[in-house]
Amino acid sequence: MLILKVFDYKRKLMYNIIEILRTYSLKDISIATLSSHSALQILKGAKDEGLRTILICDEKRFSFYSQFTNLVDKFIIIKSFNEIENVVPRLIKENTIFVPHGSAVEYIGLDTFLNLKLPIFGNRYLIKWESNQRLKMKLLRESGIPIPREYSFNENFNSLVIVKLSGAKGGKFFFISSSSTEVREKIQEYLSKGIIKDVNDVIIQEYVIGVPMYFHYFYSPILNRLEILGIDIRYETNVDGLRRLPIEYAKNIKPSFIVVGNIPVVIREKMLTKVYEYGVNFVNKFKEIEPPGVIGPFSLESIVVNDETIVVFEFSGRIVAGTNIYVGMGSPYSWFYWNEPMYMGKRIAREIKLATEHGLDMLCKVIT
Amino acid sequence: MLILKVFDYKRKLMYNIIEILRTYSLKDISIATLSSHSALQILKGAKDEGLRTILICDEKRFSFYSQFTNLVDKFIIIKSFNEIENVVPRLIKENTIFVPHGSAVEYIGLDTFLNLKLPIFGNRYLIKWESNQRLKMKLLRESGIPIPREYSFNENFNSLVIVKLSGAKGGKFFFISSSSTEVREKIQEYLSKGIIKDVNDVIIQEYVIGVPMYFHYFYSPILNRLEILGIDIRYETNVDGLRRLPIEYAKNIKPSFIVVGNIPVVIREKMLTKVYEYGVNFVNKFKEIEPPGVIGPFSLESIVVNDETIVVFEFSGRIVAGTNIYVGMGSPYSWFYWNEPMYMGKRIAREIKLATEHGLDMLCKVIT
Amino acid sequence: MLILKVFDYKRKLMYNIIEILRTYSLKDISIATLSSHSALQILKGAKDEGLRTILICDEKRFSFYSQFTNLVDKFIIIKSFNEIENVVPRLIKENTIFVPHGSAVEYIGLDTFLNLKLPIFGNRYLIKWESNQRLKMKLLRESGIPIPREYSFNENFNSLVIVKLSGAKGGKFFFISSSSTEVREKIQEYLSKGIIKDVNDVIIQEYVIGVPMYFHYFYSPILNRLEILGIDIRYETNVDGLRRLPIEYAKNIKPSFIVVGNIPVVIREKMLTKVYEYGVNFVNKFKEIEPPGVIGPFSLESIVVNDETIVVFEFSGRIVAGTNIYVGMGSPYSWFYWNEPMYMGKRIAREIKLATEHGLDMLCKVIT
Repeated sequence: MLILKVFDYKRKLMYNIIEILRTYSLKDISIATLSSHSALQILKGAKDEGLRTILICDEKRFSFYSQFTNLVDKFIIIKSFNEIENVVPRLIKENTIFVPHGSAVEYIGLDTFLNLKLPIFGNRYLIKWESNQRLKMKLLRESGIPIPREYSFNENFNSLVIVKLSGAKGGKFFFISSSSTEVREKIQEYLSKGIIKDVNDVIIQEYVIGVPMYFHYFYSPILNRLEILGIDIRYETNVDGLRRLPIEYAKNIKPSFIVVGNIPVVIREKMLTKVYEYGVNFVNKFKEIEPPGVIGPFSLESIVVNDETIVVFEFSGRIVAGTNIYVGMGSPYSWFYWNEPMYMGKRIAREIKLATEHGLDMLCKVIT
Repeated sequence: MLILKVFDYKRKLMYNIIEILRTYSLKDISIATLSSHSALQILKGAKDEGLRTILICDEKRFSFYSQFTNLVDKFIIIKSFNEIENVVPRLIKENTIFVPHGSAVEYIGLDTFLNLKLPIFGNRYLIKWESNQRLKMKLLRESGIPIPREYSFNENFNSLVIVKLSGAKGGKFFFISSSSTEVREKIQEYLSKGIIKDVNDVIIQEYVIGVPMYFHYFYSPILNRLEILGIDIRYETNVDGLRRLPIEYAKNIKPSFIVVGNIPVVIREKMLTKVYEYGVNFVNKFKEIEPPGVIGPFSLESIVVNDETIVVFEFSGRIVAGTNIYVGMGSPYSWFYWNEPMYMGKRIAREIKLATEHGLDMLCKVIT
Repeated sequence: MLILKVFDYKRKLMYNIIEILRTYSLKDISIATLSSHSALQILKGAKDEGLRTILICDEKRFSFYSQFTNLVDKFIIIKSFNEIENVVPRLIKENTIFVPHGSAVEYIGLDTFLNLKLPIFGNRYLIKWESNQRLKMKLLRESGIPIPREYSFNENFNSLVIVKLSGAKGGKFFFISSSSTEVREKIQEYLSKGIIKDVNDVIIQEYVIGVPMYFHYFYSPILNRLEILGIDIRYETNVDGLRRLPIEYAKNIKPSFIVVGNIPVVIREKMLTKVYEYGVNFVNKFKEIEPPGVIGPFSLESIVVNDETIVVFEFSGRIVAGTNIYVGMGSPYSWFYWNEPMYMGKRIAREIKLATEHGLDMLCKVIT
């Protein structure tokens, strides 16, 4: 019954979104995004494809983004991203499709985002699955993708684990341990300090030994194909700096895992087939679970254990910041699909453009 | 006597190859490669240069490669790469030049590869030197390139060494030690477990302290020049992941050295002169030892000790996977030679195309 | 009084430089640089912009640079870079603007460089501030940019510090310590061995825990704007190699910090606003201190502590070698400013070209 209600609710919202799209002039679409994360490439991509651009910009970042009048046709300055609902009518008037990125949900809040009465590129419900650690791992597991073992709070273990907090807190409170007692003590401490509200706000995950790689995918409902558009390695402070410190000093410093940048990487071609399979499985499974399924960019965050085993510990259901590496000229992978420079921001705009050229029915395929 | 026989044998094979080339329509050449390693860039490079492409694809990878009908004109599906000799007649009928990559010998087997009655781009005999650790180090040494010290099985030492296995086993069994006793024990263990068959299957090499860099070269017999087309760093599991783990845990885990990816890097320009010298010396020496010498791509795998010392611990006598980084737009170095995007796959195709435009004699310069 | 004298001196030199520029045919400018560091991209950039190029090349590197006749219109071979003053008349005759890079001052000497009677692109006096550790940190501090704490020789401390030597000695003698006693002993040792001449030749700097990132800027007096053209991570031997060594061995080896390469990286977009602010502050402050202020390329070398804190421990007042990464196609950032491939060498040439097109007054804005 609950599921039906949710579905009804979704259907109603989707009905509203389509009603909005009906009012749009498809030859005069605007792309809007928020001033952070991968906004510059989303804007540039839209301009490359000849679309109009709107940047919803918070006051304090305007001095930075105002440099890029070549990329932004219209600035909508707001005091706080909470106010986004207030600007929706203006956005609709400009035939706007909103392109969410990794900071969108963090800034707007998940509920506001899910209920936004504005056409959004991509499947907004994938973000819901991304935002909850349990749903996230469930989707990966059901897609048949190898994931790390997960432990419950009361379980005893003596193997290496990483304890992660829900939400986009960027890894500041992540920690590694090999003792279930230590893990429980630390979680209690987080509870008492108010860092978390519930034991279920953390996930206790097997720490997989290997090297991290993050795969950038784009699923195109218009071309009906999955593209691998790049790979990155995250650059995290201080963990990636500690290793430059002599061991005698480094051993006394607790590592943190705050992502501050991304480094390009390519994978052995024989392993690329597996990367592709994982992506296909993910797309197929989500289509079953939450129609219309994946639309546009997503990412599988993984540990490469050896030349045959890739374990995925997380996914992102929208453009990831690692794609910023390939702005302009595309990645080594995007060239295999497109005989022209193609990066994620441009790929998104291309999908929207292709859809609008085919009319409202097609456009509805890439919008929720 | 033995040498003469070998030479006669080579001469006879080469005679056969030239006979095959005589039957080719030089205006209608196909490029073929195997479905792994750097196949996608070899195919794309050929398409960029207007050549026809054939992918010899094993069954289980077809679902992956079949995405790229834009890059592959014809798929030849085989159950196993062992069967390659069976498809040679079909390849010859299509005026095919085979472009080997780092997995070719591993898949086909060295003997089959060396005796393949099919025109191969590059000097197939360089692969022979690459495939044997002793010959490999000999060629580097005789080229006047600094190499790590090598120890024999019975030699006593107490300096840091890395013990490597022959063949393309990817570093799974490599280990580091500073004790000759420990090294001998470990090698005995490998013998008893059947991981190696002979003490000579391992090489005990001084572990040079510094940072790895892998230099990608292309020697052009047609333009009579050596080009530096890029540099990479290998991304190896788990050794490059261990350093992200707190020392208390990392110290208990044995590092492995399985290459799973590559990261781009540039070198200080004052050291680039040395990189160029090494390449020139290598090309000159191999021309003496094994005419016609180096043709096309090769790589020197090195440790940069300081800003004046580069030690080379290995070479590859064909395209390396690190060049996958630069697909599409080329590397910072290729732009100094070519006022257009130039990556290794395209460079190979360009050389073949330039050769065919000049006729059979020129083509014979880049084929064995 | 001293300040006035310096100013008079500068004024006189600047008067001479303008007199030289008056003799130039602005439609026929040559760009010259020295054969090292980032020479290839400076030359290629100039050719891309249609300018003539001169390479002042030392004898022993000629065999390397002579490959690039496509990039160099004229070679001026000299035995030693000390002789540069002797070739100034020839350079002037060719309407030459000299583009200094990171090795220029090291090779020519600071005094010779500052007094060179040759039009130099950029503000040569910024190099003076760069060359002195005290002035360098002073400029950063006065720009309101967070810098590491600095300790004096006699100060007692027990926090982590890095001890750096003045000059371009590349980090060979850098060391890390957490004991003021040990630091003093080591510095005394350097004094006695003649590695340094004075206690003030070293700087004792707080070792900031985080990850390094190096930001490449270009300030354009012609377009009156600051551009962020890229970011890199330095690749240093042996410190970046030690982390691949098992801890039991690595712990006994002293790290060195010799830069031998550079790796590309992008930063989280929300932090890019801070990177931009730092650059703006630096440009504004230096305009006050040393008119005409910053011209062209500079770099802030930093440690990213977390997603809100970036500490700058050094700057470079000219093109840095890290920009070599982006030769050819530009960086992900340069594409936001320029709808065409734009890398630092080309950006410099573009600025000179734009200036010459506007006449002598404009050209004087980018020359000292």
